Amino acid sequence: MSTESLHPDRVTNPAYQFGQEHLIGLADYSADDIRFVLQQAAYFREVLDRPVPKLPTLRDKTIVNLFYENSTRTRLSFELAQKRMGADVVNFSSSSSSVKKGESLKDTIRNIESMKIDMVVVRHESPGVPHFLRRCVDAAILNAGDGAHEHPTQALLDMFSMQQAGMPVKGLKVVIIGDILHSRVVRSNIIGLTKLGAEVTVCGPRTMMPLFVREMGVTVSHNLEECLAWCDVAMALRIQLERQEGGLFPSLREYHERFGIRMEHLERYPQFTVMHPGPINRGVELESDVADSERAIILNQVTNGLAIRMAVLYLLSGRREL
Amino acid sequence: MSTESLHPDRVTNPAYQFGQEHLIGLADYSADDIRFVLQQAAYFREVLDRPVPKLPTLRDKTIVNLFYENSTRTRLSFELAQKRMGADVVNFSSSSSSVKKGESLKDTIRNIESMKIDMVVVRHESPGVPHFLRRCVDAAILNAGDGAHEHPTQALLDMFSMQQAGMPVKGLKVVIIGDILHSRVVRSNIIGLTKLGAEVTVCGPRTMMPLFVREMGVTVSHNLEECLAWCDVAMALRIQLERQEGGLFPSLREYHERFGIRMEHLERYPQFTVMHPGPINRGVELESDVADSERAIILNQVTNGLAIRMAVLYLLSGRREL
Amino acid sequence: MSTESLHPDRVTNPAYQFGQEHLIGLADYSADDIRFVLQQAAYFREVLDRPVPKLPTLRDKTIVNLFYENSTRTRLSFELAQKRMGADVVNFSSSSSSVKKGESLKDTIRNIESMKIDMVVVRHESPGVPHFLRRCVDAAILNAGDGAHEHPTQALLDMFSMQQAGMPVKGLKVVIIGDILHSRVVRSNIIGLTKLGAEVTVCGPRTMMPLFVREMGVTVSHNLEECLAWCDVAMALRIQLERQEGGLFPSLREYHERFGIRMEHLERYPQFTVMHPGPINRGVELESDVADSERAIILNQVTNGLAIRMAVLYLLSGRREL
Repeated sequence: MSTESLHPDRVTNPAYQFGQEHLIGLADYSADDIRFVLQQAAYFREVLDRPVPKLPTLRDKTIVNLFYENSTRTRLSFELAQKRMGADVVNFSSSSSSVKKGESLKDTIRNIESMKIDMVVVRHESPGVPHFLRRCVDAAILNAGDGAHEHPTQALLDMFSMQQAGMPVKGLKVVIIGDILHSRVVRSNIIGLTKLGAEVTVCGPRTMMPLFVREMGVTVSHNLEECLAWCDVAMALRIQLERQEGGLFPSLREYHERFGIRMEHLERYPQFTVMHPGPINRGVELESDVADSERAIILNQVTNGLAIRMAVLYLLSGRREL
Repeated sequence: MSTESLHPDRVTNPAYQFGQEHLIGLADYSADDIRFVLQQAAYFREVLDRPVPKLPTLRDKTIVNLFYENSTRTRLSFELAQKRMGADVVNFSSSSSSVKKGESLKDTIRNIESMKIDMVVVRHESPGVPHFLRRCVDAAILNAGDGAHEHPTQALLDMFSMQQAGMPVKGLKVVIIGDILHSRVVRSNIIGLTKLGAEVTVCGPRTMMPLFVREMGVTVSHNLEECLAWCDVAMALRIQLERQEGGLFPSLREYHERFGIRMEHLERYPQFTVMHPGPINRGVELESDVADSERAIILNQVTNGLAIRMAVLYLLSGRREL
Repeated sequence: MSTESLHPDRVTNPAYQFGQEHLIGLADYSADDIRFVLQQAAYFREVLDRPVPKLPTLRDKTIVNLFYENSTRTRLSFELAQKRMGADVVNFSSSSSSVKKGESLKDTIRNIESMKIDMVVVRHESPGVPHFLRRCVDAAILNAGDGAHEHPTQALLDMFSMQQAGMPVKGLKVVIIGDILHSRVVRSNIIGLTKLGAEVTVCGPRTMMPLFVREMGVTVSHNLEECLAWCDVAMALRIQLERQEGGLFPSLREYHERFGIRMEHLERYPQFTVMHPGPINRGVELESDVADSERAIILNQVTNGLAIRMAVLYLLSGRREL
């Protein structure tokens, strides 16, 4: 895959048609679509390294961030991307309780659209909400996480981070470690990574392993040691402490012992890179020193997340004018 | 009434003097004042239909949105209007509990004014708060709803929506249906509509009918069928479920049966247009299909609300420089 | 001290090197540093009196306001200063509970920095948090209040307000009255005022008098009458009602009788000026008429606070480019 960056002007070039109007999930994106986003992100990544990391390509756009679930980092990343591109941004936060019924969610989004909004970034605890919204309105819908379904910008930034670290995704050996059952991150990553030709293994306790993964073309393992010996990238997932109902596994300490990446692993297997979507539970998924080691590219993932969100916002905004 | 739109430059024309520095309630506005706002809104309504619905006429202004009561839609509409006009916007949300005493409210507003704020948009659960603030400070005060007193921009957008739908307000037959007792929307609408020469009937259960309406020059009815047979516009009010203390009427179901607008009404009386300030309780004030029918202009009301808020912000900001 | 104002261009003049990259506390600032900030603030104070009180000197900067503790006024003042200087601003509010551990606070700030943030304004209930953050990241850190430790912009605006009211700080007699024990305002003020050569007395109930003040070069008094007879400036501190655990003093009424400034004091001692950091508990620290009298410069303090925050933001942003 070429990592040549793409100037925004390229997008209006009729030679290439970016076929997407929304970003609901990577399931809807072809390998080419994904590669095009990553290529565009490489351009914005360069912008972020300039003394003034701004590019006012969304100056004429209005974006609503519709967060029905707390998500400081993702919201911050989207909001920064939007403001640095000059968009008018309005935040709308709400507990899901006030919009439990589909009807009222539909009314909310149609009202927002009547205010002449160009794009809506939505996070919701229920899978399928972004998909539902797309059918209600003309505005571009960006999924910032819907329940345990998808979190596509996270997967895009993960793939982009591999590329930026000099590891083309095609043929890359990636192990994703942790609570596979409750993670939207893992689902989007499996879809994206396999589309781009990576070899993916998921590794975690049996109680955190959903049935569906076996049908997604990935290998399932319960042996961290074997996975770390094999992989190019070890992506540890955050244990959602609040989602663990008692008794799934004996203790956090035991989890760390069986599935936490520790300094001894880095020494034993010198070939792999450590990733984590954050926020880290230090001492659980990763030994604290691992998180801070040079083998971890976790902070790069954060910067790359900004570039990916700029790229997606830019591509979807441009698309609607064609 | 002329619906000719008004370019912003017209306002500085000494031939016309817009006599208002604040918008506390329509009670303070003459019919000419109201018409002038509606005319100005027609200009901004055209702006909203442009590919880039922005007009940076408030680029030099700072506005504080002071919301002591939750109001996602009204806050969103004001904030969008402000940002599209290029104002610097700061939001201040607070529960009323921390500012229960008039003294502390006065101190809050005087502090805000000391920060060189041009305009304050205020929503508060207590009637009279905007009026009180106007006496404390020099900044322009815009009432975004004060208890059961007034909600003037809602009434302005309702009248504007009638006009935009091809129904001049003068001589128009309007029935307002629902909880007349607890509604600030109805109060502002009665004042505005009667000033512009509409014929207004209010219709609702006896338990939701305040004594004051009989003195406001409107007809009172408890018979929905008769009202719908007579009217040009049927404006259903939102039942504030949270304000109904037990036993006011037997049930929501009975309310819907006696005062909800249903498809059978649309078929029986083909002449009237349906309005609702939102958010709708589907199946209570309106049958769901009624809300989505072509006879309803509820989403137009939302867009028109943006135009009205742009117009009011613009007129009051311009006024203070004369 | 010269009150000659300083044009922003002066800052890039190599003749003067502003030696600070952060504002953690006045303890780290020399008398010259403080004077330089005050001089810069005088320039921004003039900007605030212009018809358009804006100066886009931070147009290329991104600032995060990281508030782990409620503070409407300080947050509003910083946000207004930032927006009027054209910065991109993102707010991050959080209860401290979710970031109790230093590790997670460190991860939060490093993540924020990875988003290419230039400055972080932080308020936290724990003393030392801004100091801790400074060691974690390269972004400029501004302390907006850390527990009972420091609140440097408040002290700077207090000194600036004395100067603006025609009272050079050097040799000025200042009494600070109230709950010395729980106040970060008093701590920063003592440090700043003594560095600039003021004579400082602190006055309050014995139960609110910490041991450390005797070592800070100030006089301790429990006699309000004597202090008011002596001083040029009487600065009343807000009684933090929520921090008073039962029984520290008999009642608010008794506090007011012994330490509240009343009209009788203004009449008896015509020489002193009244200051208060706000928000005022009227009838406790100050009789209501005192707060509104011409002897009080409390609202000027608010405007001056804006100028000080503009000055500090400007100086620290400029510094990092040298």
